[in-house]
Amino acid sequence: MSTQIKALVFDAYGTLFDVHSVIRLCDEIWPGKGTALSQLWRAKQLEYTWQRSLMQRYEDFSHVTRAGLRYACNALGLRLGEAEQARLMEAYLHLATYPEVQEALARLAGRKLAILSNGSPAMLEPVVANAGLAQTLDAVISVDALRIYKPDPRVYALAVEKLGVPTGAIGFVSSNCWDALGAKAFGFRVFWCNRAGAPVDELGVLPDSEMRSLAELPALIGAA
Amino acid sequence: MSTQIKALVFDAYGTLFDVHSVIRLCDEIWPGKGTALSQLWRAKQLEYTWQRSLMQRYEDFSHVTRAGLRYACNALGLRLGEAEQARLMEAYLHLATYPEVQEALARLAGRKLAILSNGSPAMLEPVVANAGLAQTLDAVISVDALRIYKPDPRVYALAVEKLGVPTGAIGFVSSNCWDALGAKAFGFRVFWCNRAGAPVDELGVLPDSEMRSLAELPALIGAA
Repeated sequence: MSTQIKALVFDAYGTLFDVHSVIRLCDEIWPGKGTALSQLWRAKQLEYTWQRSLMQRYEDFSHVTRAGLRYACNALGLRLGEAEQARLMEAYLHLATYPEVQEALARLAGRKLAILSNGSPAMLEPVVANAGLAQTLDAVISVDALRIYKPDPRVYALAVEKLGVPTGAIGFVSSNCWDALGAKAFGFRVFWCNRAGAPVDELGVLPDSEMRSLAELPALIGAA
Repeated sequence: MSTQIKALVFDAYGTLFDVHSVIRLCDEIWPGKGTALSQLWRAKQLEYTWQRSLMQRYEDFSHVTRAGLRYACNALGLRLGEAEQARLMEAYLHLATYPEVQEALARLAGRKLAILSNGSPAMLEPVVANAGLAQTLDAVISVDALRIYKPDPRVYALAVEKLGVPTGAIGFVSSNCWDALGAKAFGFRVFWCNRAGAPVDELGVLPDSEMRSLAELPALIGAA
């Protein structure tokens, strides 16, 4: 089964890129509030992607990320000025990869490697370049071309189209369980990177494999 | 403007029906955990409606409500047996209305009054009957006929179709801000019942009116 995988498609935020530096910056700007703010920010950012998709009122990920930040600051009584908003949005362009990412990707060489992300091209291109991944990846695919967010099946179909690899030969990797399950429902072979040790979401499908970090991925697909 | 409203369409859970009794039962079964459990349960219940809608894998609200409960118990380390699950789901069929609901609806008589809810008919019919609202309402409309959840615009269009009243003559009332804004984006005149005093969601539209309870509604539409 492992030899069938001709391409690996990765989610970006939380899967390859560690958003912890954004959390740290939240705490630097509003001491003691960083965790509460970043959790609510992330929750609203995602809610808005789902709600706007269903409302047929797409705005790009940069827009919904700022909207989530404004809501979260309002709800927590934190004053968000232009300067703070600019610093936090800028931090999204300079995220580090998780420590195991570079080596794991190197061991997967020979397959097509790509990102499939909610992020807009204007957010993804700098973060990929700043992390030194531009040469490693065959494609950086954004939902922005479709104006719809994950887990709509058209998003996963975009990876099939852009990579020219059949659905059944694509392995999909995400730390977001609902994203992993959206990809599974679509037909990919799915590796859920369960960094937080969370329960699996109850959406009627299960990932093919579960791992705690991407260091386990090469062995799981027989590339060790 | 107020004379234009020929029908009022209400969200059910949290707007007409007080879900507090479910929270209390959570706390009775798992003392000290009721608030955390019911918050996570509600969050997952909603997430699953959005995610399943986008995944094109609709299951009815009873199904996603049970799924959310299972996830929340798993995440909090609470043992959910058949008996507990049955008691909690049964509680959804016996919710009380908020204290001001009966009088507010009585003062709105003369207009068409309806519910438009994510709830399945098998959940809505008993709760409406048990609360004594069956004679007050002209229609109890469920998304189930469409197999898609709020805030998809087809859901709001269903109320127009079922009531035979033009979009612009329908007032929509919800305590869920994202639902209110979905209805506003569709074209209804929208009254957000902000029971919790929350910030407005950042979805690019605003409700026409905001109130803290339905007691304010008759005056807002000129029926006082």
